[in-house]
Amino acid sequence: MSIPTLLPNHLGGQWVTGSGAGTPLFDPVLGTELVRVSSAGLDLAAGFRFAREQGGSALRALSYGQRAGLLGAIGKVLQAHRDAYYEIATANSGTTARDSAVDIDGGIFTLGYYAKQGEALGEARVLLDGERIRMGKDPAFQTQHILQPTQGLALFINAFNFPSWGLWEKAAPALLSGVPVIVKPATATAWLTQRMVQDVVDAGILPPGALSVVCGSSAGLMDQLQPFDVVSFTGSAETARLIRSHPAVAERSVRCNIEADSLNAALLDPDATADSEAFNLLVNEVVREMTVKSGQKCTAIRRVFVPRALYDAAAQAIAAKLARTTVGNPRSEAVRMGSLVSTEQKANVLEGIARLRAEAEVLFDGSGQPLVDADAATSACVAPTLLGSRAPAQARLLHEVEVFGPVATLMAYDGLAQAVELIRRGEGSLVCSLYSANPAFIAEAALALGSAHGRVHAISPDVAASQTGHGNVMPMSLHGGPGRAGGGEELGGLRALGFYHRRSAVQAGVDALDALAASAVALKL
Amino acid sequence: MSIPTLLPNHLGGQWVTGSGAGTPLFDPVLGTELVRVSSAGLDLAAGFRFAREQGGSALRALSYGQRAGLLGAIGKVLQAHRDAYYEIATANSGTTARDSAVDIDGGIFTLGYYAKQGEALGEARVLLDGERIRMGKDPAFQTQHILQPTQGLALFINAFNFPSWGLWEKAAPALLSGVPVIVKPATATAWLTQRMVQDVVDAGILPPGALSVVCGSSAGLMDQLQPFDVVSFTGSAETARLIRSHPAVAERSVRCNIEADSLNAALLDPDATADSEAFNLLVNEVVREMTVKSGQKCTAIRRVFVPRALYDAAAQAIAAKLARTTVGNPRSEAVRMGSLVSTEQKANVLEGIARLRAEAEVLFDGSGQPLVDADAATSACVAPTLLGSRAPAQARLLHEVEVFGPVATLMAYDGLAQAVELIRRGEGSLVCSLYSANPAFIAEAALALGSAHGRVHAISPDVAASQTGHGNVMPMSLHGGPGRAGGGEELGGLRALGFYHRRSAVQAGVDALDALAASAVALKL
Repeated sequence: MSIPTLLPNHLGGQWVTGSGAGTPLFDPVLGTELVRVSSAGLDLAAGFRFAREQGGSALRALSYGQRAGLLGAIGKVLQAHRDAYYEIATANSGTTARDSAVDIDGGIFTLGYYAKQGEALGEARVLLDGERIRMGKDPAFQTQHILQPTQGLALFINAFNFPSWGLWEKAAPALLSGVPVIVKPATATAWLTQRMVQDVVDAGILPPGALSVVCGSSAGLMDQLQPFDVVSFTGSAETARLIRSHPAVAERSVRCNIEADSLNAALLDPDATADSEAFNLLVNEVVREMTVKSGQKCTAIRRVFVPRALYDAAAQAIAAKLARTTVGNPRSEAVRMGSLVSTEQKANVLEGIARLRAEAEVLFDGSGQPLVDADAATSACVAPTLLGSRAPAQARLLHEVEVFGPVATLMAYDGLAQAVELIRRGEGSLVCSLYSANPAFIAEAALALGSAHGRVHAISPDVAASQTGHGNVMPMSLHGGPGRAGGGEELGGLRALGFYHRRSAVQAGVDALDALAASAVALKL
Repeated sequence: MSIPTLLPNHLGGQWVTGSGAGTPLFDPVLGTELVRVSSAGLDLAAGFRFAREQGGSALRALSYGQRAGLLGAIGKVLQAHRDAYYEIATANSGTTARDSAVDIDGGIFTLGYYAKQGEALGEARVLLDGERIRMGKDPAFQTQHILQPTQGLALFINAFNFPSWGLWEKAAPALLSGVPVIVKPATATAWLTQRMVQDVVDAGILPPGALSVVCGSSAGLMDQLQPFDVVSFTGSAETARLIRSHPAVAERSVRCNIEADSLNAALLDPDATADSEAFNLLVNEVVREMTVKSGQKCTAIRRVFVPRALYDAAAQAIAAKLARTTVGNPRSEAVRMGSLVSTEQKANVLEGIARLRAEAEVLFDGSGQPLVDADAATSACVAPTLLGSRAPAQARLLHEVEVFGPVATLMAYDGLAQAVELIRRGEGSLVCSLYSANPAFIAEAALALGSAHGRVHAISPDVAASQTGHGNVMPMSLHGGPGRAGGGEELGGLRALGFYHRRSAVQAGVDALDALAASAVALKL
């Protein structure tokens, strides 16, 4: 690791170091300072203008196929520097290699996916949205909806838990759309984002202004946004409120995508038994979701609904597996789960557990076991905790408070109707998973729950090996959710391009529509 | 006409008269009071809950085909009472029968369109959005995006210029989606909206709670909204800002669609000549757009761009036609253009003209001609005014200030690139129209302008008879626009259903997806 240094920002096509001493980033296991960041003194207005005008024009001059080629080239650069990213993740996020992979390799995989999808769009510069439709009895005059890249920039204000994937899952569709990107990573883990942008910029793949990074304070960023810019935020509901109330959004109609906290649920089939495969699949998935990245995934399972008769059996099975989860320094081979991202998050998680305990019993508490190669007092390591409630209908906090760590609450339900009602008390989430061997139950539950969740993930014995995981966000499926989850939509294959495009209905004679179609390709979902 | 009376609201499945003296509605030509409205003292919380729970459940219990049948039945009821609506429009909006038709018959037409589109969706209760896609090499596990009605209500806060169409163009897709509607019409013209809702409710077509109307103040309406509700607003940028900043939207992620003021443009082909058909088509369309509904259409042409060499010819041709526009009492056979909606709007328009005159010359001023059967001092009649600028690149207000009346500004441009740049200074609008006999020019201009306009309307000689009009909003095309236009999207055929549905990716084994598909139909655009 290098000597603590102030990481340069990339803005206006240049590397610019912020002024002042900067904000330090720490190793959450060792407590040591790693690097510093500062965005103080940057000329944001000039930098945003450069991205919008230089970056945007250069990207829009390319076809979808050419821009897809850029994504492929970015992926190759990241692959070449992969070891450095794992080193940074271990140091700055406190994650094991397996957990770092979700972020690092997940980001590279998503880039590759959009490179492939974009390649199929070929030489087109505009997308046809739906069929041409006649506007009256005379077929001479028709309407054709088209999608074109917005002539603005995309500002990403990102969360600390995915410094790599969080950048690329947004940047891949933005760049493929022809829209330049400015990313403001969460300060705690900004290093990995900054390093990746640095490697890509240094490789000279992208036109100047196409990709910028600002580390440190987000002060003044929103003020720069113009009507054709877009902003995408992942993080807390409180910051989401500030962004949506900002004049850029409220007055200038800047398009805004929000992904906030949510209380994702898992639901076991009411007809399952303790010796059924569905039961085992639920237990395995809950344990995995609680422990991967120490539960710091916005998609992680927070509430586990099982039929009342299986409450004790589920509690015992989940607890038994959690008891085998070794926690500590991710550099140690013996460690299965690393630390939280910061001691601040550790305090938040411990406080959150205390709040939930007002309404829940403790079914498993791993904090009695010693940490491996880590100091309980100074590190941000937190052991898994399984809470439980036999009366979730009487609970309020359990359906409202998300504890962003290795914590979930088991709940007993009586009948599917009640389970659906209890799950809906979360007021919208990113994902709800179902565990059943019965396709009819899965279809019924998916229809009962779909409108409150951006994703419904069904795990049945026949897909035990091929299912992609409750909490894993795959690029071909929608990521986002209504209500408490923020109301946003990301990914979902080429649906992701919609956020970065403007839809327009072209009403014209068929000759003009034929001429327009020559530079277009149909958008197929 | 009846004796001035307090119009009842319909909320919570009941007719409820607000308390207090109420706010009077006037005849803008005669200045007489017509009726009063009041929403004071209504139990909004109970009324919204009733709509959400009773209305929503009952609508969602129906298939798309059944709900389409309801739309057809609504259209029949409205047809049966059509004469009464024209009478109200004449009295309360001051419009001629031809202008009232745009609102009344436009609303009925849009209902009929969605009835037909919805019928084709048949017995389905869920929409399939795109193809089923495998999530890995193994085809056993796949993702299918679905759309389901949101389990909330739709609040419409509407504008004064379309009390009929403004209701039905939103209510048709909402009701077809299975989402109950509460409409808050603009107070000035609330009577027509209220009467239509009354006729539909009295006819007993819809389940209780499916359609409600609150007339008068909008105080407290936004406070009632819950995470799965949606709000759609048409009106001023200032009110739009308040709605987007409200905690319902900013904190509770209530989905919000905004359609605000915009400065729609018309563009004449740079190669056109004064004796070309394209030139004549432009002149006719500009005059029509300036005078239909006295220019009180959010889609009306506000800026007219012609090649510099044709500036004088266009000014003369447009002025000559405007001079033949008789203005006055819409009850008179001799009148082509009625009044504005209110003396308040008249004051706004006259003030707006005065502001624009700081940057424009007056090319035609109809105010010297006498009004027909109307008092210039007391009526809200305003004659058409054509302003002009030979140096629009130096102007600022001309691209920023929308005068919501029979007013447009002619502008001279030098070359297509400059014209595009000047049109884009409007920072986004609902519609831009093109006038040319050359399909290649139309395609080029549509691609240059599309991303800043929700709709591009091209008028060429071959479609002179079949083109649907710059300002006419047809249900098969998108209505809305980026930036100054508010960033919203309405209509566009079945695209309109998206706002009232929630998208969800169902990831499951193929047997479960097959079971789900049994109650679904593919959404085709």
